[in-house]
Amino acid sequence: MTDGIPRPEIGNGELDQLCANAIRALAIDGVQQANSGHPGLPLGMADAAYVLWTRFLKHNPEDPHWPDRDRFVLSAGHGSMLLYALLHLTGYDLSLDDLRRFRQWESKTPGHPESFMTPGVETTTGPLGQGLATSVGMALAERWLATQFNRPGFNIVDHHTYVLCSDGDLMEGISHEAASLAGHLALDKLICLYDANQISLDGPLDLSFSEDVARRFEAYGWQVLRANGHSMTEVAHALAEASDEPERPSLIIARTTIGYGSPNKAGSAKAHGEPLGVDEVRLTKERLGWPTEPAFFVPGEVYEHMQLAVEVGNTRQREWEMMLERYKAGHPELAALWEQMQSKALPADWAATLPPFVADPKAKGTRVASGEVLNALVKVVPSIFGGSADLAGSNNTLIKGAATITGEDFGGRNLYFGVREHAMGAALSGMALHGGLIPYGGTFLVFSDYMRPAIRLAALTRLQVVYVFTHDSIGLGEDGPTHQPVEHVMALRLIPNLHVFRPGDANEVAMAWRSALERRDGPTAIVLSRQNVPTLDRSNGLAPAEGALRGGYVLRDAEGARVALLATGSELSLAVAAADLLADRGVPARVVSLPCWEVFEAQDQAYREGVLPPALTARVAVEAGRSLGWERYVGQGGAVVGVDRFGFSAPYQEIYRHLGLTPEGVAEAALRVLGV
Amino acid sequence: MTDGIPRPEIGNGELDQLCANAIRALAIDGVQQANSGHPGLPLGMADAAYVLWTRFLKHNPEDPHWPDRDRFVLSAGHGSMLLYALLHLTGYDLSLDDLRRFRQWESKTPGHPESFMTPGVETTTGPLGQGLATSVGMALAERWLATQFNRPGFNIVDHHTYVLCSDGDLMEGISHEAASLAGHLALDKLICLYDANQISLDGPLDLSFSEDVARRFEAYGWQVLRANGHSMTEVAHALAEASDEPERPSLIIARTTIGYGSPNKAGSAKAHGEPLGVDEVRLTKERLGWPTEPAFFVPGEVYEHMQLAVEVGNTRQREWEMMLERYKAGHPELAALWEQMQSKALPADWAATLPPFVADPKAKGTRVASGEVLNALVKVVPSIFGGSADLAGSNNTLIKGAATITGEDFGGRNLYFGVREHAMGAALSGMALHGGLIPYGGTFLVFSDYMRPAIRLAALTRLQVVYVFTHDSIGLGEDGPTHQPVEHVMALRLIPNLHVFRPGDANEVAMAWRSALERRDGPTAIVLSRQNVPTLDRSNGLAPAEGALRGGYVLRDAEGARVALLATGSELSLAVAAADLLADRGVPARVVSLPCWEVFEAQDQAYREGVLPPALTARVAVEAGRSLGWERYVGQGGAVVGVDRFGFSAPYQEIYRHLGLTPEGVAEAALRVLGV
Repeated sequence: MTDGIPRPEIGNGELDQLCANAIRALAIDGVQQANSGHPGLPLGMADAAYVLWTRFLKHNPEDPHWPDRDRFVLSAGHGSMLLYALLHLTGYDLSLDDLRRFRQWESKTPGHPESFMTPGVETTTGPLGQGLATSVGMALAERWLATQFNRPGFNIVDHHTYVLCSDGDLMEGISHEAASLAGHLALDKLICLYDANQISLDGPLDLSFSEDVARRFEAYGWQVLRANGHSMTEVAHALAEASDEPERPSLIIARTTIGYGSPNKAGSAKAHGEPLGVDEVRLTKERLGWPTEPAFFVPGEVYEHMQLAVEVGNTRQREWEMMLERYKAGHPELAALWEQMQSKALPADWAATLPPFVADPKAKGTRVASGEVLNALVKVVPSIFGGSADLAGSNNTLIKGAATITGEDFGGRNLYFGVREHAMGAALSGMALHGGLIPYGGTFLVFSDYMRPAIRLAALTRLQVVYVFTHDSIGLGEDGPTHQPVEHVMALRLIPNLHVFRPGDANEVAMAWRSALERRDGPTAIVLSRQNVPTLDRSNGLAPAEGALRGGYVLRDAEGARVALLATGSELSLAVAAADLLADRGVPARVVSLPCWEVFEAQDQAYREGVLPPALTARVAVEAGRSLGWERYVGQGGAVVGVDRFGFSAPYQEIYRHLGLTPEGVAEAALRVLGV
Repeated sequence: MTDGIPRPEIGNGELDQLCANAIRALAIDGVQQANSGHPGLPLGMADAAYVLWTRFLKHNPEDPHWPDRDRFVLSAGHGSMLLYALLHLTGYDLSLDDLRRFRQWESKTPGHPESFMTPGVETTTGPLGQGLATSVGMALAERWLATQFNRPGFNIVDHHTYVLCSDGDLMEGISHEAASLAGHLALDKLICLYDANQISLDGPLDLSFSEDVARRFEAYGWQVLRANGHSMTEVAHALAEASDEPERPSLIIARTTIGYGSPNKAGSAKAHGEPLGVDEVRLTKERLGWPTEPAFFVPGEVYEHMQLAVEVGNTRQREWEMMLERYKAGHPELAALWEQMQSKALPADWAATLPPFVADPKAKGTRVASGEVLNALVKVVPSIFGGSADLAGSNNTLIKGAATITGEDFGGRNLYFGVREHAMGAALSGMALHGGLIPYGGTFLVFSDYMRPAIRLAALTRLQVVYVFTHDSIGLGEDGPTHQPVEHVMALRLIPNLHVFRPGDANEVAMAWRSALERRDGPTAIVLSRQNVPTLDRSNGLAPAEGALRGGYVLRDAEGARVALLATGSELSLAVAAADLLADRGVPARVVSLPCWEVFEAQDQAYREGVLPPALTARVAVEAGRSLGWERYVGQGGAVVGVDRFGFSAPYQEIYRHLGLTPEGVAEAALRVLGV
């Protein structure tokens, strides 16, 4: 299997093989030109991917956003040149010059696929396992929307999600979570093409991997099929069988030779992650019967054949659009809802439904307020959809009165992700990428670490996703340090383009949700307390919670304020109490609420300096987490009342007291800063 | 199965059942007294755990550190009262009063097990899946040490690793990685007792989970056994069979009733995560035939029977110690090596083997230097053992000339973890906990996110582990933003008790390794560049690299320095070049290298202020990562030349230039700060 000569006996037609080899040649030329990249996967999977793209994939290269297109996810994102070659050859807006600029500054062909850089790239991949789990979210969204919108004769939502994955993808833990969830939910329109090439970066796969992948996926409830990945006939049969399967997701184990066609590197790790080299590129082309010059050569008949995708795609999309027109006539309300959800527009006056919370010194955990806000919102914003990673009750993410999503019935609104934080994170991204949904997912804040790679990709890919992270500090008490996220709020703030909201009371919670729903170009983490915090009485000199929409605001001012007390979340009321103590000592203090740093820092300088005047240099921050990072606001002369160690297992009031997170502690810090 | 009446037909003897019920009663009393905790697991697993602890587990309650003891890991850490009850009843230093103080301030019985708080607790658990993967590391360490040290007639290292896990553990992705790795490595002495109770926090397990766990583990190459978890006979048979298995790890699927014995809550999620309530505690005790008063009652015959563990344990340990004495006589060199590795002591003069690197303006990636240091160190520090997550070549973690660890042969030194960063992280912790090893593991820095929960637990548990994180910034170039860790260095600095070393040249790399090996009470992450950086010429006015051992030092001073340039890693030489430019402009600048903040901050104030004098307020930091956090050192008046966005796919020199990470950019920032 290590030579690359196309053999008629595996059933590939001459033109088909020419097309597959065009993909191969473009891929190795791209990698060679960049002098960087991964030739092995495109060489190995060209045949199978060609079959999928030309005989199965429903898509329109002239409209990469057609809602009912099939999705194709290259989970093994390092094989990006395979995808770029396919996009170019089937007629997407990606030129040969774009391919020549593979991995160059601001090119449309970055080293790993980025959906915001390249038309036709469905999601950003590279970190292994993410694409597979993201595709589960896409398939999940398809099925949920299909259940909501399809009517007899009107399959408005009816497409497959294809994912190409590698050995590395399947080694990652997230692949387990995602595949197990997909099997549980019976996502029959999810089809995974597994490039089983038996090679990993370090060498032969059996250095580290010996599992029976077929048996494993059968255990998850998948259909498992096998094919010689270099036989187009076998791959086509398997894809057809997968498409026909009515109940289970399908895994097609395509046995391939990595670097297929390269005389000296095929079948070895040498073909994996570095350019073949000029000589080996030449030898490979010779072996494939390909002109060695010029680079980036594509025969006219290849274009002619593969760009049929444009005509076919346009025809299919037109047919679908005509169906949609008839649907609008027959089901006008559903059609209107469909269009609204697709557009991501929020209904008029939606924000008026945000519940106002009345002042209450005893009050509730901000997580409880979040649950009330969420339940109010879903009534007017039907695209909100999500669940929790087995903590629905604790995260307050359940939609009351709504049914549970099951493999048999997708008519509900409550999704149980299971104890699968990482797959949940990536699936939320897939749901957002699919369109039609504003997804949310809940877990404890400490477990945001389990899904951090997925959060990062969502932020990079600019996806509207809402994370509901409860039990946000030492305030969860007895569960102890393993469950107390002292560093997580600041660690999340470090992820570019992620908004981290830590609301200080119930009314700020409503504003956090509002901000998250209004934001289209990135994810928002809403960070919530387990323990009760007062709903502040804002009738009495405290500013309205709408200030939170600017990320930070003066909650309470004081004539001639000598010190500013900055706080977030459950420590906001503590700062207010500290200001009272300071007032008693004759020290007027301003209290600044900073629930979302990223939004605050996006305000103009005048606003920011209005909230934190440069002249007001005496500043104390209080937050039940690491102090590192707060120096940005309090300066070197300021103080931070934080938690610079792991927490404790004990009733939370005791932990707060021992760590000095008390009104007295904050007031003392302020006096120290003032040198009083 | 939902009533709790012990039935003779399942083969439990009367005394045995009394002991199991004593565990149950202590557990529910502990949870009730704390008014917080998880009664369901201890009630469900009391029978099986009792059998394991009294008939199989090799341990000595009077010496929890006996090196050849069996390890027991409660992966489902929320069931901590089960473990505390077992420790108390078998005679560990854990009193009834300790049990009464469950989940209270500074008690020895925190909400989740913490190995540094409680004698007999092998590791810190709670975040699901971690315990299972940690136990894989323990079993791996056992096998490696056995291969090194056992000789005919002398099984110095010969013990099992038992792990009790729950449905939630097996849903987590890390369980897939860990179990797949254990199967691949044929860790036959790893035995997992799976509490299959069909209930998760949100309700019946089938809300989210429907996989065939047996089939899945068979796919990993495990032996799978089944038992009624309430039949001591069946559990004992399964444990015996697991112990006899010579090649595969074993999974015992123990079907249990969560909350067994509780008349109104058994078999439901209500028994899972909250106290039963006073009434239900009473009803449960009645159902179990237990005195309802007093709480924390233990019959004398239970103590008598279960504390046999002390006598048996002492006898077995004595026998082992006698064997060790004979071993010392017969194999003195091996025995000396064994003792040295057990003691964690480093050989005399070990640090002299650290290679000095000569100045070289072209030089090498700091990852290359790290590989050379590592290869030098293993020759004198035999306890260093580890590998990489399928990036051995890129991480430079291979031990040259050493063999590969395989399931058949553990005689090598190179471990291939596969693309399993998370399991690798936890396994490293298990190896450190086992003793005899200083484990290291490598991956790209960006994938530290995949293993972050394991890093956090290692830091909390104070384990000596070395993480080798290469490709540490935009400097990796073409692979693009998915692989460029702009936020990860600072995010790691946020984890308490983790040392994050980002050495600036080859000689600082040697110091980073030295610091990591000398540190016994916590992990160290060594953060390394892909791209070449100069090895600084320190003969010429630059301070020696030993300064790095204090975390930060003045690399180059200047008479009347007006500005301090702070840098780490690959940006250190850039700061030096900027200082040259500033000197040309007549602005003397001090260059401060800050490779490890945590170590620097542990220095006394005089030292710190010597490096960064409070009067030298004009400061510029340069690091190819997020600026947030650097305000700690540069103050509000200073500047940070950093990367406050995701990166780009392009040759790295271009990325540096576009982002202003150049000597000119740093010099300009300094001039701006100075108002020049």
